[in-house]
Amino acid sequence: MSPSSICPAGFLDRLDTFSQIGATPDGGVDRMEATPANGAARRQLIAWLEEAGFGVRVDAIGNIFGLMQLAGQDDPWIMTGSHIDSQPMGGRLDGAYGVLASLDAAIALRERLRAAGGRARANLCLVAWTSEEGARFQPSLLGSSVYTGLLDLEAGLGLRDGDGISVAEAFAAIGVDGRDEPPPRPLAYVELHVECAPELERSGERLGIFHRWWGAHKIELRFEGATAHTGPTPMAERRDALVAAAEVITDLRAMADAADIGSLHTSVGRLEVAPNSPNVVPRFATLFCEIRSPDAEIIAAGYQRFAATACGAAARARVAQATVRDELREPGRFDAGLIAVAEQAAAQFGIAPMPLDTIAAHDAIPLARVGIPSVVLAVPSRDGLCHSPREWTDPRDLELGVAWLSAILEELVTRAR
Amino acid sequence: MSPSSICPAGFLDRLDTFSQIGATPDGGVDRMEATPANGAARRQLIAWLEEAGFGVRVDAIGNIFGLMQLAGQDDPWIMTGSHIDSQPMGGRLDGAYGVLASLDAAIALRERLRAAGGRARANLCLVAWTSEEGARFQPSLLGSSVYTGLLDLEAGLGLRDGDGISVAEAFAAIGVDGRDEPPPRPLAYVELHVECAPELERSGERLGIFHRWWGAHKIELRFEGATAHTGPTPMAERRDALVAAAEVITDLRAMADAADIGSLHTSVGRLEVAPNSPNVVPRFATLFCEIRSPDAEIIAAGYQRFAATACGAAARARVAQATVRDELREPGRFDAGLIAVAEQAAAQFGIAPMPLDTIAAHDAIPLARVGIPSVVLAVPSRDGLCHSPREWTDPRDLELGVAWLSAILEELVTRAR
Repeated sequence: MSPSSICPAGFLDRLDTFSQIGATPDGGVDRMEATPANGAARRQLIAWLEEAGFGVRVDAIGNIFGLMQLAGQDDPWIMTGSHIDSQPMGGRLDGAYGVLASLDAAIALRERLRAAGGRARANLCLVAWTSEEGARFQPSLLGSSVYTGLLDLEAGLGLRDGDGISVAEAFAAIGVDGRDEPPPRPLAYVELHVECAPELERSGERLGIFHRWWGAHKIELRFEGATAHTGPTPMAERRDALVAAAEVITDLRAMADAADIGSLHTSVGRLEVAPNSPNVVPRFATLFCEIRSPDAEIIAAGYQRFAATACGAAARARVAQATVRDELREPGRFDAGLIAVAEQAAAQFGIAPMPLDTIAAHDAIPLARVGIPSVVLAVPSRDGLCHSPREWTDPRDLELGVAWLSAILEELVTRAR
Repeated sequence: MSPSSICPAGFLDRLDTFSQIGATPDGGVDRMEATPANGAARRQLIAWLEEAGFGVRVDAIGNIFGLMQLAGQDDPWIMTGSHIDSQPMGGRLDGAYGVLASLDAAIALRERLRAAGGRARANLCLVAWTSEEGARFQPSLLGSSVYTGLLDLEAGLGLRDGDGISVAEAFAAIGVDGRDEPPPRPLAYVELHVECAPELERSGERLGIFHRWWGAHKIELRFEGATAHTGPTPMAERRDALVAAAEVITDLRAMADAADIGSLHTSVGRLEVAPNSPNVVPRFATLFCEIRSPDAEIIAAGYQRFAATACGAAARARVAQATVRDELREPGRFDAGLIAVAEQAAAQFGIAPMPLDTIAAHDAIPLARVGIPSVVLAVPSRDGLCHSPREWTDPRDLELGVAWLSAILEELVTRAR
């Protein structure tokens, strides 16, 4: 069975077309949630879904669902998808690949079912979750968190970006006004994604299955000192919020550098300084910190050291310290039954998928947390890169992923419950 | 001689009125150069100058000159003034005090000359220099640098703010379109300013004279790494520009903390991170660094250590390093003759002004550098604060400063050359 026999011609063309939306000169995309480019991507996806005969629903948090009726009205649902928002200097594949792969996998599946005259026992629902990235609005995984009830709808619509614009306001600005009921909870959720890590590429493998997800402790930490002139103010009298922030950034990095490889990742990806004028001692420094590990105890120990460093740095810099946001995602395991289905489907291609950890978050995690059997599949990322205009995967692997996903979905919609 | 006999009633009222322009809720002002609030402040000053009978000129870089003819057309000029732009979270006094003090001092002087029937040998020019602060456009001291020829007019108009807007574009947006010739170089330049340091307050003194200015080496340093996902990307493969920046911030601070008090001040007041998204390893980090000292050798040694730290930090973080802007202002001394005049004038009030260093830059420095005899006078700053909404000086000291300035200007315009 060759991938090209399953993938309808045009999957890569569709990906190319989609990549033009919000394209950046360096070959990446900028489609942060609820920006005009994101609105254009939403309209393109909905047009393709309608063209392919899906019933389209958009719920109040902006999740786009494409319903493909394969079984009876009252039969359960299998869900597949990913997200179409991106990082501000993001790549073509992160999220968009999984959504467009789901679209083609579903269409191919429907054709196979029709050709075989087979009867499905479940219906298929494609989904594009809102604001998976959390680039513009924090926290991330917004659409799936609201869908699963882990986050209140009103709280989600009220999240604000760095300019104080809420999700609701940003949606209104691009004409997103979802009023549909979301579909009921599915029997299973399957997400296909680029790996965003170098393991598959290094091992020369083409397919992987995430068995575990890393936990993450994300802390938005704010230091507040006092403005003063950077010239005459005696050093001992300065209350410099940025000096405290720098100490935290350095120590967070040192902590991860000192840990066993693959046991602890840390970062500060965003730092807001105010008033941020060359001649003024910084009054505010707000850091967006992450401590990630597959081991809950390592996260807890890392957080303890982080907190001690932050408090010590605040004291040394004579500034106040406050935690603006604190979000702990425990590590966990994806559904063993779905992993087995995915392994069996891969066997059709003569491949034994590599077991992987996902360190990046995926919308499958909130679904798994509320008891929906979920799994995330992976194809390689060149140089392990994600959140970069340089994201790239061999087109043959992209197409293999689509075929694999389609085979998995076929098993899930046709098997006896 | 009491201050109130020289200060016309209304100086403090005028300061209050002026402080409403660009007022912030915390009692400070935000009148960054070429913002709408700065435009309103410019119009208010020009209205007061015209009302008081000054001939108003605005030159191509936006400097506002108020010409008061006290002697013959061909007689030389004495210049006094400061600036009316502010920091984004600035205070009411920094700059505005000197300009409004000059206005009242000049009016009072003219009245005394008229009353005495005395003959002046020089004319008086009030000036409000453009963009002294350098908060929006770097470098600072823009208007005085162009006036003195230290900076080319076209280069000055082409400076861009953080959003890429040039000085010329920002002026057009607020309707500033100066086309007048600036007045010729004056015989002397006298600037009155709040101290922006705690020396006067601590010593219980009311008046000070800056004898020396500190040198400053200002470096805009950019690190460039690569975007990547903050989750899965192995720590050893990250090229994190912010990690390098943090090391520089920490070491710059440590360098000043280790130096003798009053010999070295360092800072990073502004830091720009991109893409600045919580989940993305920072690709760019641009730091605005300052190394200040009264001793040129200390500045040079500080810069050497700074450069070594920056290069080492770049290597450790696997990022590239580039100097975007590098500006060295050598330390220097103000005019001894003017200092003597200011001391003699203060003696009228029974005060021996305290000799001070200025660490903050003032427009008098570029004037002094091109050979115009210049001096800066100071009244106390509460808690030494400048570039803060909490700037405050006892109103009696503010009025004393006006009277002192007026007495100095009287001596300068009437004495034989």
